[in-house]
Amino acid sequence: MKLTLVGAGPGDPELISLKGVKALQQADVVMYDALVHPDLLGYCRPDALKVYVGKRLNEYSCTQEEINPLIVHYARNYGHVVRLKGGDPFVFGRGYEEMEYARQHGIEAEVIPGLSSSYTVPAMAGIPLTTRGISESFWVVTGTTKSGSLSTDLPLAAQSTATVVILMGMHKLTEIMQLFGEYGKENTPVAIIQNGTLSEQRVLVGQVSDMADRVAESGRIGTPISSPAIIVVGEVARLGAQVAAEVVNQAQMRS
Amino acid sequence: MKLTLVGAGPGDPELISLKGVKALQQADVVMYDALVHPDLLGYCRPDALKVYVGKRLNEYSCTQEEINPLIVHYARNYGHVVRLKGGDPFVFGRGYEEMEYARQHGIEAEVIPGLSSSYTVPAMAGIPLTTRGISESFWVVTGTTKSGSLSTDLPLAAQSTATVVILMGMHKLTEIMQLFGEYGKENTPVAIIQNGTLSEQRVLVGQVSDMADRVAESGRIGTPISSPAIIVVGEVARLGAQVAAEVVNQAQMRS
Repeated sequence: MKLTLVGAGPGDPELISLKGVKALQQADVVMYDALVHPDLLGYCRPDALKVYVGKRLNEYSCTQEEINPLIVHYARNYGHVVRLKGGDPFVFGRGYEEMEYARQHGIEAEVIPGLSSSYTVPAMAGIPLTTRGISESFWVVTGTTKSGSLSTDLPLAAQSTATVVILMGMHKLTEIMQLFGEYGKENTPVAIIQNGTLSEQRVLVGQVSDMADRVAESGRIGTPISSPAIIVVGEVARLGAQVAAEVVNQAQMRS
Repeated sequence: MKLTLVGAGPGDPELISLKGVKALQQADVVMYDALVHPDLLGYCRPDALKVYVGKRLNEYSCTQEEINPLIVHYARNYGHVVRLKGGDPFVFGRGYEEMEYARQHGIEAEVIPGLSSSYTVPAMAGIPLTTRGISESFWVVTGTTKSGSLSTDLPLAAQSTATVVILMGMHKLTEIMQLFGEYGKENTPVAIIQNGTLSEQRVLVGQVSDMADRVAESGRIGTPISSPAIIVVGEVARLGAQVAAEVVNQAQMRS
């Protein structure tokens, strides 16, 4: 009777840890999220139970309140449950809540970190969150808080010299860009990366003042850029321009 | 002629990505840092050249200015160079500089992200950087800047509600704690994790006002906690207390 939270990484199925793969191979039950790459389920034993528990923004197949008791149910009835979560389980993943819930029900629980999208998606799009002489720190904020309003950390982030990474913020993009504008950051570079690390990756680079318009325009080569996407605000975002151009060229060649 | 920057992860040799292992298996030359686990070199081909380029705080075997041309030298003379760096290459890793230098010398370069110590070390010590209702964001800062003085982002970080993670900051611990104290954070929990994710892991939990003293006291069960270590400041740091107690018990049982 055991729960192992495993981070599935940012998308590319090779961006999972060896330790995570080993846990998958040993699992009796794997409970997986919407953003987990299907190839990862290939590591499971043929007799392992695979349970989809979904969770995408605006498309809930299970609520957190349903997932928690399910974990306990499967651990008690099957043994070793692996909870496979996109990115890292402890970076806005609500993994700690699942772990605590399991422990309160007498189930041993551990975590195997995953490659968090917050810095790996920018990296694979050519953007280092820190670089000597450009950025000395980075701040990771969620666009989707419990209360539904913008995080109170965002105004502070907007005043800082940190590279600011906003996860799950696309539905509040206009509001977020406005906030950065109010703190004199109209000309600060912004990059938005959708489906990062995957072949469907799309990268858009602009600046605080024109980013919302650029997202709307991005609809010209398909649908507008949307969730799941990472927003990077800071001088380093400029470095994504080269990858962005390549992505657009590839899309135009395909169409 | 190619450079692949690979993140070796936080310490535990199973916390490397599958993609990173594949790159190691293909490398003609592997240039590795001090904090890379020796087991990872076992993935190299027997005929691959393994070059130690060191770099620990206060113990330079190669400077960055020496490493850059070495990369070019090995790529030109041997083919595929893997640059294996502790943690993630783009999180204070100076990886972007190495990549740019290689590209300027006509060498194709790519990055394979690693599990950054900034959040994986706290996670394995029982500390999630974000948790609903406790912390909505996290800020990763270096204690070692180019200029040698404290990062100008630190006073802002001290004012925020973010979980603040300080990498490479042990030599400035007293100064850093003092700064947080000045912003009214005397009672904010702090965790310091040395050798995170490894069996030699040590965890110390206290608060801003007493952390420097606790580090000095930690010398009673061996040497005082020191680099390489991660400093976590914020309410979530409190959650490390359980693991800290287990670590101390184990150390006492061994002695």
